[in-house]
Amino acid sequence: MVGTSETAPIRRVAVLGVGLMGGSLALAARRRARVHDVRGYDIDPRATEQAVTAGVITRACGTPEEAAAGADLAVVCAPVRSVPALVKAALAADPPPRLVTDIGSTKAGIISALTLEDRRCFIGGHPICGAETSGVRFAREDLFHGATYFLCPTDEVPPELYEVLHAFVAQIGAKPVAVDIEAHDRIMALVSHVPHVLANVLMSTVGGFEASGRRALYSVGPSFKDLTRVAGANPPMWRDIFFENREALVASLRGLAGELTSFCELLESDDESTVLERIEQTAGFRQELLQYEDITPETLYRVTVRIPDKPGVLSQVMTGLGNANINIEDLTLHHFNRDVGGDLILYVSGEETAVTVGMLAEELGYAAFYSGGAGG
Amino acid sequence: MVGTSETAPIRRVAVLGVGLMGGSLALAARRRARVHDVRGYDIDPRATEQAVTAGVITRACGTPEEAAAGADLAVVCAPVRSVPALVKAALAADPPPRLVTDIGSTKAGIISALTLEDRRCFIGGHPICGAETSGVRFAREDLFHGATYFLCPTDEVPPELYEVLHAFVAQIGAKPVAVDIEAHDRIMALVSHVPHVLANVLMSTVGGFEASGRRALYSVGPSFKDLTRVAGANPPMWRDIFFENREALVASLRGLAGELTSFCELLESDDESTVLERIEQTAGFRQELLQYEDITPETLYRVTVRIPDKPGVLSQVMTGLGNANINIEDLTLHHFNRDVGGDLILYVSGEETAVTVGMLAEELGYAAFYSGGAGG
Repeated sequence: MVGTSETAPIRRVAVLGVGLMGGSLALAARRRARVHDVRGYDIDPRATEQAVTAGVITRACGTPEEAAAGADLAVVCAPVRSVPALVKAALAADPPPRLVTDIGSTKAGIISALTLEDRRCFIGGHPICGAETSGVRFAREDLFHGATYFLCPTDEVPPELYEVLHAFVAQIGAKPVAVDIEAHDRIMALVSHVPHVLANVLMSTVGGFEASGRRALYSVGPSFKDLTRVAGANPPMWRDIFFENREALVASLRGLAGELTSFCELLESDDESTVLERIEQTAGFRQELLQYEDITPETLYRVTVRIPDKPGVLSQVMTGLGNANINIEDLTLHHFNRDVGGDLILYVSGEETAVTVGMLAEELGYAAFYSGGAGG
Repeated sequence: MVGTSETAPIRRVAVLGVGLMGGSLALAARRRARVHDVRGYDIDPRATEQAVTAGVITRACGTPEEAAAGADLAVVCAPVRSVPALVKAALAADPPPRLVTDIGSTKAGIISALTLEDRRCFIGGHPICGAETSGVRFAREDLFHGATYFLCPTDEVPPELYEVLHAFVAQIGAKPVAVDIEAHDRIMALVSHVPHVLANVLMSTVGGFEASGRRALYSVGPSFKDLTRVAGANPPMWRDIFFENREALVASLRGLAGELTSFCELLESDDESTVLERIEQTAGFRQELLQYEDITPETLYRVTVRIPDKPGVLSQVMTGLGNANINIEDLTLHHFNRDVGGDLILYVSGEETAVTVGMLAEELGYAAFYSGGAGG
């Protein structure tokens, strides 16, 4: 699959939008794909200056057209709603780039904004490795290492262009996965956009609920904290993502609302065995996910360590575990307040390990307890 | 509020169900409330033997009646569905205990299983400090320290009995909060049972979804992982909790399904400004929660550190942060696989701290990046 003799190699890359993602892609292009000429454009000229100084790109350009002109590959690394305009700007360069791609988290909206002619040299892309908003300062050539990198070619794209992009994605360390646009957007709706909507809706429902003079918000526990960690995150960015992927998102949300209603019906009809089956089926999927991530789920134990809220305590606990050669499969923190501290919740493999963690924590003077099963 | 001269003090406590919670309550009764006579009963006689040996209880009893006879306070610390039978057994003791309470996470079902006569000396209780299933071995006298402890007295309960329980709860270190039964169950449905249902429904929807030959489950990111950490947990226990709190849970779930549908309508009617307002309102609630937990939300930054999957790495990072006196307000881990490792996601106060964390991580050789705002 990697660049063959029939495929002309990539000699010049243009990155349109030089933030963390664009900068990391530029670095990976230079150091991993051995591209010597990597030009950058950003709406903020300081970003491209900084990128040149840091050796992230080889040349700063004042316009997207200037950056994209004559490039073998132009990569648009901008917020989803800016993508179509930047793709069009890149395609308007003289000479136009051989191929344009993007890294936006939704695809149908972008494609529908392009003409048939545009689509002949555009392939939507989406690396699954975070969507942070920090700048080029934190760019890393290994950001894409091991990440699934979706590619969504339309029928208009010549196969040799797809091959070029596929090879480049593999060279920067990611795993290219071809998927059709509708499937991509539906999957992203389910695994990313729906969780954000659920977190928001749960948080606003609980935030607004009061009974008997008691606010629900002040009685929350670890499960609520886990479910709402992303609630309210970056409002303008998430508004844009929700609307860009509106169709798939609405379909998924309506499906989920239907599932909640049907769960209510199981409760109301006293169908205890089906409820149990459903939870067990869910446990099966979670085990499958853990297996996919190389964690042995049958033996996953959850250990809760109650720690005070002081600098150094987490490191003290972690150092103790590290010295004992204990591997943490997953972890989360449930903070109560400055006075009480919080619960550090650790997931480890095997009951013996769980007991060891508990004893180590107790030696340090912290309460600890554990429960078995895939997630306690 | 603490035990007055008019209130006879608690001299003998019976704990019915000696697991982590019951054992911790027994220890707290002995060491914090200075109760010299703490008797225990458990369906598993080994648990009470172990509890006597470890000094958790002062006497092991073979039946709940034997343990409860003549007690000033009998505390039922058993799974929700076993609570009514144990309350009735305690009340049938000769002489009956002065007061019976429980620590179950739902209240209406238990109350409805009791007679008016029973209710004269029963007060439902519910400490918010975890519902782990590990045994008495991990019992700690400080388990209840600082925890909200709901008390749900009915109208049948004489005020002086409520005062006795209130004083005891304060003595073991918890914060007693009176709340009516319906409000309690509705709040618990929202903050605990609904999150579990959402986690289950999201996991089973994603688990079953495949498009274009790609399984959604294999494309999940950190937000999905956070939302489904409790998915599939302890199926029989959660089935029981869901059914015990069926009425409040169904009301909350139907409300939430309605919110999802109304969110879909906002998307379909192109109402971008209301969607933005909703996310911002949610961000406000999350900030309020963080403030309630003594975290300054305005300055919370999210730092992602990509770490390999090896024992000692977490401790290495945490030790570095501890040495630099950096306080972690919240954290979560997103594991990819053994090869790539995962993202350690840390929440810290202030951009300067975020940059320091990033630099420390990079000094250790790990990629790091950050984003601002309440949760990135």
